[in-house]
Amino acid sequence: MKHFEQKVIRFIDEKNLINKNDKILVALSGGPDSVLLLNLLVKYQKRFKINIGALHINHRLRGVDSREDERFCRLLCESLNVTFYSVRKNVKSYSQKYKYSLEESGRILRYYELNRFADKYGYNKIATAHNSSDNAETVLLNLIKGAGLRGISGIPYKRGNIIRPVLCVTKKEINSYLKFHKINFRVDLTNLSSDYERNFLRNEILPVIKKRLNPSIEDTILNSSEIFRNADCLIECKVNEFIDDVADFSGKELKIYLNKLPELKPELIPELLKTLLKKNFQMQVTFDDILKLKSLINKESGKNVNLSSNISALKERNVILIGPYIRDENFQPVNTEVGKEVQINGKKLCIENCERPIKFSNKKNEEYIPADNIDDKFIIRRWQYGDRFYPLGLNGTKKVSDFLNEEKIASSQKKKQLVLLNNDKIVWIIGLRLDERFKITNKTNRIFKLCLR
Amino acid sequence: MKHFEQKVIRFIDEKNLINKNDKILVALSGGPDSVLLLNLLVKYQKRFKINIGALHINHRLRGVDSREDERFCRLLCESLNVTFYSVRKNVKSYSQKYKYSLEESGRILRYYELNRFADKYGYNKIATAHNSSDNAETVLLNLIKGAGLRGISGIPYKRGNIIRPVLCVTKKEINSYLKFHKINFRVDLTNLSSDYERNFLRNEILPVIKKRLNPSIEDTILNSSEIFRNADCLIECKVNEFIDDVADFSGKELKIYLNKLPELKPELIPELLKTLLKKNFQMQVTFDDILKLKSLINKESGKNVNLSSNISALKERNVILIGPYIRDENFQPVNTEVGKEVQINGKKLCIENCERPIKFSNKKNEEYIPADNIDDKFIIRRWQYGDRFYPLGLNGTKKVSDFLNEEKIASSQKKKQLVLLNNDKIVWIIGLRLDERFKITNKTNRIFKLCLR
Repeated sequence: MKHFEQKVIRFIDEKNLINKNDKILVALSGGPDSVLLLNLLVKYQKRFKINIGALHINHRLRGVDSREDERFCRLLCESLNVTFYSVRKNVKSYSQKYKYSLEESGRILRYYELNRFADKYGYNKIATAHNSSDNAETVLLNLIKGAGLRGISGIPYKRGNIIRPVLCVTKKEINSYLKFHKINFRVDLTNLSSDYERNFLRNEILPVIKKRLNPSIEDTILNSSEIFRNADCLIECKVNEFIDDVADFSGKELKIYLNKLPELKPELIPELLKTLLKKNFQMQVTFDDILKLKSLINKESGKNVNLSSNISALKERNVILIGPYIRDENFQPVNTEVGKEVQINGKKLCIENCERPIKFSNKKNEEYIPADNIDDKFIIRRWQYGDRFYPLGLNGTKKVSDFLNEEKIASSQKKKQLVLLNNDKIVWIIGLRLDERFKITNKTNRIFKLCLR
Repeated sequence: MKHFEQKVIRFIDEKNLINKNDKILVALSGGPDSVLLLNLLVKYQKRFKINIGALHINHRLRGVDSREDERFCRLLCESLNVTFYSVRKNVKSYSQKYKYSLEESGRILRYYELNRFADKYGYNKIATAHNSSDNAETVLLNLIKGAGLRGISGIPYKRGNIIRPVLCVTKKEINSYLKFHKINFRVDLTNLSSDYERNFLRNEILPVIKKRLNPSIEDTILNSSEIFRNADCLIECKVNEFIDDVADFSGKELKIYLNKLPELKPELIPELLKTLLKKNFQMQVTFDDILKLKSLINKESGKNVNLSSNISALKERNVILIGPYIRDENFQPVNTEVGKEVQINGKKLCIENCERPIKFSNKKNEEYIPADNIDDKFIIRRWQYGDRFYPLGLNGTKKVSDFLNEEKIASSQKKKQLVLLNNDKIVWIIGLRLDERFKITNKTNRIFKLCLR
């Protein structure tokens, strides 16, 4: 059992987790891992010259058992002569309020309280009892469920003020040590049932893999995690070198300058896009999002794609505009053509061949456009975040959004506004304003009439 | 089934695997994957404007079955109007000769022949039928058995002139397609039994994971593979930017300049060390090798570590020297001390306290050293690659290796040469030359006598 302790001490030294005079707050659940961690740190506190306290967070998920856990931790700390803190949090109500899973809520509250207590009582480090089995499960589960480098980097042995001194030993090694030294702990029954996927991996997959493919898979994956974490770190650095040159974020809309991208290695672009989306829209970026964005880079201006989390991206000439789009729950784009009448929002829109001479009117629901070099297929759709057009009579472009604001369209109506497109160009903000590019000139031969009745 | 074909075509287009006028040589085993690949490429050869040929490599591992495979492939190509080539290779004898596994030998011979035929008959691309199930197996197996980024990057869809157009579909999808279209193929029975670990993963682990955790794990891992490959590529680039500044390789010995390392991000150092070892010694670098080398960086001069593949590393003041060491099969380092007699190579070495006055002699098997500021523990060991000492009478250091050459020691004897160490310093190239640092001076009080009898 000396070997076990040496392994942990060597890990702490190698990774430089503990310095002289550290004040360390241990996250103490009462389960085997945290009980072991506390015992070891206490045993070696003189060697490390450290101060130790422990915080128990009562998640109030298991009634009497939760109170018993707390009592157990208090008594353990008394017996070890460790300062004990405890706090009760209602994980269930937090989970219901913020729509996180119970596990996620527990995690958030735990780290929040650990940091709060550390700050309040002057602990410069927080120690959690994650072990190499937890790490292997995390890495494998993330790989199986879909992950980038961050996902398979596993649990870091050090992150900010958080240290994980027993990350180098397996759950099994911990249990043997506790048994050998007759150290008591609490069995958290929720652990055995709450996280279905993790438990399936832990209880059914990993044991077989260990038996048949690699008995020391935890060590193997811990080593690999470190390689992956290093790589992730390097790429993050590299992306951050470029990120401010390549894009601007206005608070709502992200602009990616396409002429800056060729300066980057192509392999870096997916990571850059991912970081930009994550950073500015706090979204869970999928592989599909990145594929769509990447393909948009080489598409013609005016094309757009919908990403996950209600974010959409629009290609303009030298820039990609990204922002939240208004989810169009009631109106799907409608194809129409010359000679056809379409029912929209209780009115009829028709596009007709039109004979000269035209009687121009002031009616905003009637417009004329040149038919000469134009496709006779049209699309009617709601305007999208990022849409721009050339308002008739104005020199240059304007965002449809801004135009609608200037027209004092009520915001409830604004999102319902329809536009008519020809070949991806906005022809008409329907019922409001024609596009300058579709103005009748003295060179116009044939004419279409647009009409909303 | 149209969907299946579209998926493959889209993949080929997206990854730009095929260009107009490509001449593609398909690796045709006769199994389901390669039969499907050939059929699909033939079906779309006009769309892609390509020429297709197929090479069957008869591994001669399964007697009659092997000849039947070859016949099947020949007939298939005739029916599809595809130029057919075949070649017979004795995988077994190659495997025995070069000590590779049968799988590895098959792989080496396969790619060798594919390239040879492609060159000979003017094919600019080689297509292999790896699918997303193969990729998922490779990634998972590598992660489980221990891998860096390269290992979990899976099977690349393109590498040099090799393309893998069906890497986007699963084994199951391929089988359904073949069944639906009533396309025949050969069942390779060796596939079902030869690679124990891969088959275990394929038949026992992956099906459960698919059922319980992620039914589309192949797609998921294919996406992740690409992320990992990008990262691997970026880091390789970054390492290559530095590699020539940081190290020199003489053909035998690698010098890493320690004063150059701080210019690198610390996360890059493990990758740099790994690349240097792989590149210069063609060794399989383990995580442990890198840990040892990294720890050597901060150790005192004179320390050395043995790496895998008979490579050892020696720390000198500003440099780490790495080279193959002579595997010492018969002689393990021996600890000795003053007053003790040790049996080595049929002779006796003793270190004794010695009274003045000394009768200096010319005998090379008798030397005197100062005992004043010296440890009384010594080590006798074979000299190691990278060892240096200060030959008595010479101003400066010399490699032990060079010294032995100059002394005209036969190479069979050279590797057996022993040295005496005190506190990691070479005291005596035993029976040949004392070290300058251990010279008796007029300040010397106490004296040890070294004697080989």
